[in-house]
Amino acid sequence: MLSCLSTALAVMPSLSSGMAATISGPAADVDPRIGTGGAGHTFPGATVPFGMIQPSPDTAMPDFKHAYNWAGGYQYDDPTIMGFSHTHFTGAGHSDLGDVLMMPISGDVRMEPGDPAKPGSGYRSRFSHDTEVEQPGYYAVTLADYDVHAELTAGRRVGWHRYAFPKGRPAHVLLDLRPSIYDYPGKVLWSRLRVRSDGTVSGCRTTRGWAPDRTMCFAMRFSQPMVSRTLYNRETNVTYRGFRGPGYRPEDHDAQSGRAVEGVFDFGTLDRPLEVKVAISPVSEANAISNLDQEGAGWDFDARRAAALAAWNKTLSVIDVSGTQDQRTQFYTALYHTMLAPTLSMDANGEYRGPDQEIHRANGFDFYSTWSTWDVYRAQQPLMALLRPDLSAQFVRSLVAAQQASPVGVLPIWSYQGLETWCMTGYHAVPIIANAYLAGVRGFDAEAALKAMVASATYGPYGDLADYMKLGYVPIDREAEAASKTLEYAYDDWSLAQMARAMGKTEIAAEFEKRARNWRNVWDPKTGFMRARLSNGEFHEPFDPAAAAYGSDYTEGNAWQYLWSVPQDVPGLIATLGGKAKFVTRLDELFDTKVDPAIFKDVEDISGLIGWYAHGNEPSHHIAYLYDYAGAPWKTQQRLQQIMDSQYSARPDGLAGNDDLGQTSAWYLFTALGFYPVAPASNVYVIGRPFVPKAVLHLPNGRTFTMVADNMDTAHPYVGHVTLNGRPVDLLNLRQQDILKGGTLHFTMQAEPGHEPSASVPEKG
Amino acid sequence: MLSCLSTALAVMPSLSSGMAATISGPAADVDPRIGTGGAGHTFPGATVPFGMIQPSPDTAMPDFKHAYNWAGGYQYDDPTIMGFSHTHFTGAGHSDLGDVLMMPISGDVRMEPGDPAKPGSGYRSRFSHDTEVEQPGYYAVTLADYDVHAELTAGRRVGWHRYAFPKGRPAHVLLDLRPSIYDYPGKVLWSRLRVRSDGTVSGCRTTRGWAPDRTMCFAMRFSQPMVSRTLYNRETNVTYRGFRGPGYRPEDHDAQSGRAVEGVFDFGTLDRPLEVKVAISPVSEANAISNLDQEGAGWDFDARRAAALAAWNKTLSVIDVSGTQDQRTQFYTALYHTMLAPTLSMDANGEYRGPDQEIHRANGFDFYSTWSTWDVYRAQQPLMALLRPDLSAQFVRSLVAAQQASPVGVLPIWSYQGLETWCMTGYHAVPIIANAYLAGVRGFDAEAALKAMVASATYGPYGDLADYMKLGYVPIDREAEAASKTLEYAYDDWSLAQMARAMGKTEIAAEFEKRARNWRNVWDPKTGFMRARLSNGEFHEPFDPAAAAYGSDYTEGNAWQYLWSVPQDVPGLIATLGGKAKFVTRLDELFDTKVDPAIFKDVEDISGLIGWYAHGNEPSHHIAYLYDYAGAPWKTQQRLQQIMDSQYSARPDGLAGNDDLGQTSAWYLFTALGFYPVAPASNVYVIGRPFVPKAVLHLPNGRTFTMVADNMDTAHPYVGHVTLNGRPVDLLNLRQQDILKGGTLHFTMQAEPGHEPSASVPEKG
Repeated sequence: MLSCLSTALAVMPSLSSGMAATISGPAADVDPRIGTGGAGHTFPGATVPFGMIQPSPDTAMPDFKHAYNWAGGYQYDDPTIMGFSHTHFTGAGHSDLGDVLMMPISGDVRMEPGDPAKPGSGYRSRFSHDTEVEQPGYYAVTLADYDVHAELTAGRRVGWHRYAFPKGRPAHVLLDLRPSIYDYPGKVLWSRLRVRSDGTVSGCRTTRGWAPDRTMCFAMRFSQPMVSRTLYNRETNVTYRGFRGPGYRPEDHDAQSGRAVEGVFDFGTLDRPLEVKVAISPVSEANAISNLDQEGAGWDFDARRAAALAAWNKTLSVIDVSGTQDQRTQFYTALYHTMLAPTLSMDANGEYRGPDQEIHRANGFDFYSTWSTWDVYRAQQPLMALLRPDLSAQFVRSLVAAQQASPVGVLPIWSYQGLETWCMTGYHAVPIIANAYLAGVRGFDAEAALKAMVASATYGPYGDLADYMKLGYVPIDREAEAASKTLEYAYDDWSLAQMARAMGKTEIAAEFEKRARNWRNVWDPKTGFMRARLSNGEFHEPFDPAAAAYGSDYTEGNAWQYLWSVPQDVPGLIATLGGKAKFVTRLDELFDTKVDPAIFKDVEDISGLIGWYAHGNEPSHHIAYLYDYAGAPWKTQQRLQQIMDSQYSARPDGLAGNDDLGQTSAWYLFTALGFYPVAPASNVYVIGRPFVPKAVLHLPNGRTFTMVADNMDTAHPYVGHVTLNGRPVDLLNLRQQDILKGGTLHFTMQAEPGHEPSASVPEKG
Repeated sequence: MLSCLSTALAVMPSLSSGMAATISGPAADVDPRIGTGGAGHTFPGATVPFGMIQPSPDTAMPDFKHAYNWAGGYQYDDPTIMGFSHTHFTGAGHSDLGDVLMMPISGDVRMEPGDPAKPGSGYRSRFSHDTEVEQPGYYAVTLADYDVHAELTAGRRVGWHRYAFPKGRPAHVLLDLRPSIYDYPGKVLWSRLRVRSDGTVSGCRTTRGWAPDRTMCFAMRFSQPMVSRTLYNRETNVTYRGFRGPGYRPEDHDAQSGRAVEGVFDFGTLDRPLEVKVAISPVSEANAISNLDQEGAGWDFDARRAAALAAWNKTLSVIDVSGTQDQRTQFYTALYHTMLAPTLSMDANGEYRGPDQEIHRANGFDFYSTWSTWDVYRAQQPLMALLRPDLSAQFVRSLVAAQQASPVGVLPIWSYQGLETWCMTGYHAVPIIANAYLAGVRGFDAEAALKAMVASATYGPYGDLADYMKLGYVPIDREAEAASKTLEYAYDDWSLAQMARAMGKTEIAAEFEKRARNWRNVWDPKTGFMRARLSNGEFHEPFDPAAAAYGSDYTEGNAWQYLWSVPQDVPGLIATLGGKAKFVTRLDELFDTKVDPAIFKDVEDISGLIGWYAHGNEPSHHIAYLYDYAGAPWKTQQRLQQIMDSQYSARPDGLAGNDDLGQTSAWYLFTALGFYPVAPASNVYVIGRPFVPKAVLHLPNGRTFTMVADNMDTAHPYVGHVTLNGRPVDLLNLRQQDILKGGTLHFTMQAEPGHEPSASVPEKG
């Protein structure tokens, strides 16, 4: 959004400020500020790769009707911090979490957060970005209203705080169990808090948010003893208070419960910083304490920070990138963003909660959740299958375990902390697993996985799969967003067939290959678009290819954006659209039409527009690569440049759309490397053009795959030649094996479009 | 209440109706209707001794402000039944439960319970007492509006239903997870319901009632397959519904959650009765299913009924009673009522919930809860220690386990399902344990128990124990009901000292013997009453010995009732009151004053008045026996007759006060046997007079203790002689060992008061 950009430029500090010169390794090139302003929705706080806990500053937790911009709890332009909570989504388009909100306070304690529009009100504190330090696994800021310097770091399940209070002022820590991200009155179903005899503070809170009936328990310890404490239940409207002796409240001293619980812990005047360690558990208070015991022993904030940094450097070292500072910053920040979710969602003892709300125990694997499958199946999960097959196997095992605990027997759609939200559409855990299997990821029960995938793809009540299976498409008179759902199901079905065929399950493969062709059932030759049909077979009228609305014919998009959703059969789509030339013309129209963004004001997820192309939302992500299939790869390269220039930059608002649990960053990652998985589970990548001069992928099998680009700069945006291990390579056919066996992908860039197609695309009749 | 009695007489069926002639053994003399009308608050449904589950008909579940009379879910005079729920307190003065409410319905299903004042409205059904059958472990009734004959029986954790539907009418079962006993808007914090792939229905509900944040899970199976089902969340005021594809509700078919969940299960037209089995668990859905699997295998309602009956006959056979039918009915019904609580509160796998809300596992014992300690320490628990030391040991282990899981480290005060309500006063789990230990009950860790008792008696924030320990009394300016609390603590302390001394813990014994004398600190010689003092030492003014109110100087009583609350030192009390003659005069004044019951209209628990004596509430229970200590045993005998005549009868409203988890029935039991534990932990009983001609106690050690009374009838209400094994016996000193070693207590009754005191009461200076 140009207006956003210009405002941002005025206040943006230079790249180098805030980047402490003291750290080294690829982590030093990560700027966690990127995405924390504007639409990115990322959080700036401390976490470790795929860690369960994300202690991070929250600037506001507005009512859910106004909370979109604060999905990560933080907006770069906000002037105050209300506290540090311990759970955050990275880049989500809807939200929740913000559990266990703490605030260090010097002097008088105010019990309300205050108004974000009125700095100085409540317990929130003003701060300056000049005092912030943001590095992988570390965050720091000075809370100006209290003169408290706060630092955060994290382990897998434990968050660490260090607060330097001003001398002579009484130090307190306030714990507020009322607010959460995407808040509203009545969101808290119940909470409880207690101070145990050894001084450990513990409790649980259950909320009715995006995932209803979600419980998060916690345990915290302080490096110095409390002088006193007061626990409150501040509900004002309690109909029934039980039957107690009047005047009697034993728990006020040590325990409190209700729907509006707060605790204030007093430490007197301190002569050294106070450290706090916090563990969380989705299972129980006892497990939170056990997590704290097992992973949080001792007090050494600096050692914990160093360990978090080392974990990041190790993880990020999977790719060595050369380039300008801006290229390195964007690349490693993107890589960082792809390695935050899914999050560990299992206690140290192996227990986790499933979608059935029951407690399960993981046997020999780590249970992960926070699955935005609609987003991450496209590039983020394929990236993990390529770079981290060890983790990919854990992810697959987690998906299958969740299916086995699902009350309706389906794989996760949009799940976190094990619970299903049913958000978005399709059954995209299927291509996640299929892609992993095809990519050679092992270490999971493929039979059980395939069974889970078939169960998900055949569960009739979900998204009217019943009619889809009967009619070959989803009927709009029975199910909203039927056009896009049909296309998504057809692709998911195709990916399932790929895995079935690879496993020798010929019947299943044939059944789902047939279903994979269902995209043809929503093609309307008259208008030249994919359109919703009614159960009687007629197309849905009226039809406006520009229209997009929640609950319309398409999911967070319009006909223009969904026209291209046949990644499994692009040659077939080209033929359907009338051949390569017409295909290219249609693509050009997509990108070049002048579109007023206000047309999408009611669908906030549609952003990052270039014409109708909406980079801010995932259905568009593969489209730029489609020119390659139509014999016009230079146009792919040109569009990629356009997208990179307009949608990504190394600024807090540098992500033009939600990072969507790493998908938007994964798009950046692959694109910068010069190839993209247009159809996950095809086991091939489509070659675009690179945006860094050199990248070495250190593969788990010990080999390396190197991408090198000669002459790569803004004056040379087109690919002259590209070779794989010295030989010409099919732009549509960079195979998974080609990368995994090691080698070199060598681009030579030039100023003018290359007219050698260097891609063989069979004409399809 | 005389007005209540006369109304009841008009509609009461004769004793023999409803008592199926087909059962035998002592269970055949039990009439579960007794206590289900008027103030008794017992439930008529099916259960096994101390069983976890109590399926029983509910006639109404009013708002908590009007719910007092429906504490057991049922009132005899009500014309409709709204359903059968599975958890009920027996005889409580406050309430909750009524979980898992089911209703068999033939024909059209109405979704609301209807108005209890409008029979024929909603899903409730009219019924006639003529169709009811109530036996230990069995209940039956014909639901007239549906022409459905419903039967209930139970095991320890599983309830069994059998519904005979009328031919040709569609049969349904409705499950309503909204209502509960002591209801109010907002009581349900959350509930969920699902139909599993094998047809099992399961779910959980969390409520904010007397015990806040109480979760009850359940699992049920039907003997015939469902034809269809619909699950509902019928909340009307949902602020936030998550982010779902519009028009998409997969769970409607198989799962539902929210705060107003109902399920309707359809069975079509049936040609034979439908059976339903229901298991509950305070821990989890998985455990409820496991309970059902382990204890509910197969379908044989009649065999389950027979097993429940056999369990009762075995349990009730601990005493063989001879007498008139009325005597046998009242005696065995009272014995039945003493064997319902505390209730098993542990799953088949040993898991239970503690007051910390965490899941614990019982190691080698059964965990019981539903502790009305303020009531049951007096006679019901002493009765169990005598008759069932095996269960008494489990009870003690349960109390200590609860203390070990208590966030503030205290024994249960008033707990159910492991959760603490803090209801009532004192720390009467202490005399429960002390009495058991002194009575020879073993099989528990006495060291751990004593530790738990000391922790409870020294936890400062509870009921201002802090000041009690400092000042020697509870100050009324800091704590309500301070006079009665001081007296109760002093007695609890004395009982602790008894156990400590028996264990050789001389320091602890000395400390608590000193505290046991604190009753003297609330004695006011000027007015001749026990009175509340302020922290400055002054007595609380103004003082009205008749006044009683919640939160006044006394707990559910007045100065007249609490004057006598020194069971640990009656001789000392006699001396304090000025000697035996004055003591007798004061007792006479207590019983003979003409009192207008309206004086206690705001304290519903004070009932069953004879003068100021209130048999309907526990503080009075030991008082009639005190004449024995003052050399006037014939007056004890006379008062006992008065109490028996006015407070107990074999009618539905035959209990003049709440049965209080079996305490009021235990008073009847001991009194009918001719002796009573005035001071539990003293290890002696005080002899009164019997109300059955013969009773044989079959002791666990194989011996028998026989009470036999010659000439016992209404014309011979006084004791002429009483011997123990042929020798004169001290009326104040029937020792526990005397009973346990077997023998005979032989009363000879006469028409006139006996003037041989046959009691040696040392004069105390």
